[in-house]
Amino acid sequence: MTYKLVLLRHGQSAWNNTNQFTGWVDVPLTEQGEAEAKKGGQLLKDKGVLPDIVFTSLLRRAINTANIALDTADRLWIPVKRDWRLNERHYGALQGKNKSEIREEYGDEKFMLWRRSYATPPPEIDPDDEYSQSHDPRYAGIEVPRHEALANVVERVTPYWESDIIPELKTGKTVLIAAHGNSLRAIVKMLDGLSEEEIAKVNIPTAIPLLYELDENFKPIKPRGEYLDPEAAAAGAAAVAAQGQK
Amino acid sequence: MTYKLVLLRHGQSAWNNTNQFTGWVDVPLTEQGEAEAKKGGQLLKDKGVLPDIVFTSLLRRAINTANIALDTADRLWIPVKRDWRLNERHYGALQGKNKSEIREEYGDEKFMLWRRSYATPPPEIDPDDEYSQSHDPRYAGIEVPRHEALANVVERVTPYWESDIIPELKTGKTVLIAAHGNSLRAIVKMLDGLSEEEIAKVNIPTAIPLLYELDENFKPIKPRGEYLDPEAAAAGAAAVAAQGQK
Repeated sequence: MTYKLVLLRHGQSAWNNTNQFTGWVDVPLTEQGEAEAKKGGQLLKDKGVLPDIVFTSLLRRAINTANIALDTADRLWIPVKRDWRLNERHYGALQGKNKSEIREEYGDEKFMLWRRSYATPPPEIDPDDEYSQSHDPRYAGIEVPRHEALANVVERVTPYWESDIIPELKTGKTVLIAAHGNSLRAIVKMLDGLSEEEIAKVNIPTAIPLLYELDENFKPIKPRGEYLDPEAAAAGAAAVAAQGQK
Repeated sequence: MTYKLVLLRHGQSAWNNTNQFTGWVDVPLTEQGEAEAKKGGQLLKDKGVLPDIVFTSLLRRAINTANIALDTADRLWIPVKRDWRLNERHYGALQGKNKSEIREEYGDEKFMLWRRSYATPPPEIDPDDEYSQSHDPRYAGIEVPRHEALANVVERVTPYWESDIIPELKTGKTVLIAAHGNSLRAIVKMLDGLSEEEIAKVNIPTAIPLLYELDENFKPIKPRGEYLDPEAAAAGAAAVAAQGQK
């Protein structure tokens, strides 16, 4: 028995486009992002990778990417589960800030540390900041983070993976997770058993489905999985790695 | 303690536009339908009617109406439940056929009987007809109808209302049901205790939220509820009633 898991990072969002740190700020997809999501759905359809259930974060860029892709793949009708634990990493006080400006203000070293360090979070956001989510009704009942490092994302994604996603895989369903660069990197780190150094080099391109076939212990049969469009994925990953460069 | 329920009929679909019987055929919204859904969402937002959970059918015109309306109302992140029991009435052999042509071929009496009779279903569809859903994977495990009268829709909606919707209302959640002319008429008939003659005269306009406040027995405090835009609703209901007229 093997299991099928598909990871899908949301398409371009308004703030990818303007080069701002987004995190938990709920910005929409751009038209380009919507077109990317459609392409992602077409890949699912063409390759016959048909999700039976979809998990999303609580952020509209991931939800709409899933909706557009599934509509394109004729699978909009499948069951849906949404959870904040699939949200993007909380970028703390950087949320809303321009990436190039932060890089200039704080220098390359700090910038790369905040972007890629495993355990060092960016500075905390003030709960009353316009880009804080401390008063957002969708997070009622949870303690909204003031900032997160990738390590914190791994800490919240892992229990959710075990409690909610593995049970669905176990029933034989093809599971789609539509989420974000860092919540998906957390899953990739966990699945592939990557070190902190290894995961720092992983860039996930937008809206290209990444298929993992998992063995009976939910470990990848092929390490790092398989993008449904490998060439576009390589180009997309390079573009992500270049973000924030001058 | 009172409960809040919002009913939302999908916006214009491709076959509303071409005047074809749709039923379980999974046609998309038109651009006008998408615009209607957006307006519906704006009404939810403006009136402060904020759903905490959404129920949809398995058909993309209802699902996308919900998605667009909820995105507009900043509620795209709420939990979602989809079920075939909220599907449109199955129009049997009429599915895919032009309404005016059917009216001409079979005459006014039969046409109105199939459209508005409570218990007389249209002719059965052949399970191998291109517009049958007998081989559609989304209905695996259920016996796909070959035709339905409104009575059959009431028979499937009522147990679902009791098993799945009432428990959510009971927790105090504002419940949104995004569905179809006839699955919503089934709910209205049940809530308002309408006779077969009374429900025959009820036309539900597209994409205008219909708000019901329910008492502790889940009966409407104000009979027939309240459209969030009563004027537009009256015009829309008249347009629905006129469908299939020459």
